[in-house]
Amino acid sequence: MPSALPLRSAEIIAVGSELLGTVRLDTNSLYLTEQLACLGIEIRTKHIVGDHRETLARVFENARDRADLIVFTGGLGPTDDDLTREVVAGVLGRTLDIDEAIVERIRARFARRGMAMPDVNRRQAQVPRGATVLENPNGTAPGLLLEDEQRLVVLLPGPPRELIPMFAALCERVLAARAGAERLYTASLFVTGRSESDVEQRVQPIYSTWRDAEPRIETTILAVMGQIELHLSTRGADPASARARIDAARDELARVLGDDVYSTDGRSMPEIVGERLRVRGYAIAAAESCTGGLLLSRMTDVPGSSDYVYGGVVAYENEAKVAWLDVPEALIAQHGAVSEPVAVAMAEGIRAKTGAQVAVAITGIAGPGGGTVEKPVGTVAYAVLVPDQPAYVRTHVFLGGRDMVKFQSTQAVLDRVRRLLR
Amino acid sequence: MPSALPLRSAEIIAVGSELLGTVRLDTNSLYLTEQLACLGIEIRTKHIVGDHRETLARVFENARDRADLIVFTGGLGPTDDDLTREVVAGVLGRTLDIDEAIVERIRARFARRGMAMPDVNRRQAQVPRGATVLENPNGTAPGLLLEDEQRLVVLLPGPPRELIPMFAALCERVLAARAGAERLYTASLFVTGRSESDVEQRVQPIYSTWRDAEPRIETTILAVMGQIELHLSTRGADPASARARIDAARDELARVLGDDVYSTDGRSMPEIVGERLRVRGYAIAAAESCTGGLLLSRMTDVPGSSDYVYGGVVAYENEAKVAWLDVPEALIAQHGAVSEPVAVAMAEGIRAKTGAQVAVAITGIAGPGGGTVEKPVGTVAYAVLVPDQPAYVRTHVFLGGRDMVKFQSTQAVLDRVRRLLR
Repeated sequence: MPSALPLRSAEIIAVGSELLGTVRLDTNSLYLTEQLACLGIEIRTKHIVGDHRETLARVFENARDRADLIVFTGGLGPTDDDLTREVVAGVLGRTLDIDEAIVERIRARFARRGMAMPDVNRRQAQVPRGATVLENPNGTAPGLLLEDEQRLVVLLPGPPRELIPMFAALCERVLAARAGAERLYTASLFVTGRSESDVEQRVQPIYSTWRDAEPRIETTILAVMGQIELHLSTRGADPASARARIDAARDELARVLGDDVYSTDGRSMPEIVGERLRVRGYAIAAAESCTGGLLLSRMTDVPGSSDYVYGGVVAYENEAKVAWLDVPEALIAQHGAVSEPVAVAMAEGIRAKTGAQVAVAITGIAGPGGGTVEKPVGTVAYAVLVPDQPAYVRTHVFLGGRDMVKFQSTQAVLDRVRRLLR
Repeated sequence: MPSALPLRSAEIIAVGSELLGTVRLDTNSLYLTEQLACLGIEIRTKHIVGDHRETLARVFENARDRADLIVFTGGLGPTDDDLTREVVAGVLGRTLDIDEAIVERIRARFARRGMAMPDVNRRQAQVPRGATVLENPNGTAPGLLLEDEQRLVVLLPGPPRELIPMFAALCERVLAARAGAERLYTASLFVTGRSESDVEQRVQPIYSTWRDAEPRIETTILAVMGQIELHLSTRGADPASARARIDAARDELARVLGDDVYSTDGRSMPEIVGERLRVRGYAIAAAESCTGGLLLSRMTDVPGSSDYVYGGVVAYENEAKVAWLDVPEALIAQHGAVSEPVAVAMAEGIRAKTGAQVAVAITGIAGPGGGTVEKPVGTVAYAVLVPDQPAYVRTHVFLGGRDMVKFQSTQAVLDRVRRLLR
């Protein structure tokens, strides 16, 4: 490779009419963005283009005016609809030659499955003159790398299982050396029990000073399923000082938000709660009604959770609450199945049945039916029992659809276990 | 509005540097694509552009060469970074005027929250000369609609809760009348128990003839979480005949794939199974180990599922299998907890405890730990009991991570209930 200016900006062009419908989404660009961000290469624009020769050529020409690196994904298949190779060669004024070594590799790949290579697949061996071929161990279409004046043009196959290893190898072997010394450093905080605007109001005076600082720290606040995520990033040429700076920024926000921050290292709520249980040698058992098993399912999504998850019951029917959890029928008759006394009785019932140190119970109205004026859809009563503390019981009215009510209920219970096991 | 050619093609330009990171995704375009597809307007290209004046102007200029309709999303906020209004006015050569009526509405919106309107918000009242203002009941930034020669340019705010109602109103009041007579008609089939290549091989001879037919039917095959989705679409000016044609196509594929098709109307597996239970007046109960409650959680995601879901237990610990389900300890010692005899005993146990007509049980190794040579990670034994039929029990080895193993296990069990309740 000739020496060149460092790569700083990139554009991604995802090719394929199927990416423009309502069914399939381009997800490759998220992976590419993340990898490029690590190298300090900034994505300026992403394009998703159908299988139209003229449009693709125009989008490419325009990207050449702006970007140091242009990454195509898709359009490398064997059919007439697969235009990426031709269009790139055409715009760059390169001849397309058939590389017989590639033909042989494709032929061998078909042969290993006992098939003859269809003639159309020869198209996948077309190489613009001067391009470097990128091996594809997971498919027939090789990738291609072209030097185009000061910039690089990369053509990758669309299927993620082919694209990801190919691009990872390219980053390591070529792009890392061509990128500048600056790299991206990130940190995150996950917050519960506060609204987005409340979080914003508390952290804005802090992060607003970082925007004008050098090096600048970018802050993104994201509300996801009833909780708040703060994402920080900065660039730097010295890993130690950049890392220290971003960690200090994260810690500053964590101090302001206090115990409402449940994770500063990307771990999920079930992971954090699992760790607190594991440290104490506690087992947890759950009695779920409206969440229908979601709480235990989320907890058991964590590898190794069998160390502290005892199990539990999904007592959807009132009959099940009585039979399995010894909830007195009279209690249900008096207060209703969705009530704090019943939630406590359910938690006590599952604790008695299992001997688990931590017992939780959830009963509510997930909707869309079943709501009343007194107890609207989204009303959820939950109880948490941990050793040496009084029973914790609360009622919330969660907003959103059935899945949102279920998720927020489990999140509230997990968060309470976390806080009680400080 | 002057009379004009029908709108047939569209491009979407999503504006905002935050959409180019690894955290936030542009999801508005999926909604827009769906709405436009219903009107027979085809999306040719989507662009995601950061807050850079020059880049945005160039992308817009290029889109003008190709599209009848250009939809901007985002970049209508009050700050200097919000460039959409200025760039569009600049490219079209229109003056930007402050619309005092809009200023008043924004001021009133702030006043309702007891706040004074910051001066910067006047920017949101800028209107390119000749534009139509689109009311925004859910936010401060109004949308804008511009006639640009034969084409339309639409500027929408980025937040989905503002964009969606605004665009729905625009489709109804303006775009429907400007679109051609052709509309899009779609159908789908969800298939289980077959590989993608097997489905492809069976349906390809059929759908390949539709591609060259007039009107053409497009077919997309999508493998999602261990099952296959077939999506069909066609265009037509006559609703009755287009609908009949797409339904006939769907039915033709359904005949070829037989009972492996579980849904032809978009309903999910838990909905389909729920309907079969409801029709027969059966209740279902579940004993889950490795799936940790996911089966019952998925079933109870369906509104009205309390009519047929009794509940169940999450017997994660072996002790729980013995205590709650009367699984003989000796059976676990002899065959292991992940075995067909234990799965059957768990199903029989939960049936005995609940009296439910349909009882299911799942026990397996979700991973990543716990696998052996004999029973590798992903090994799952499950049993299904329905009235008047022998117990159904099978062992599968599912591929993928922990969540994939859990999901596929629940899908296999639900599908078996579906097939046994034909």
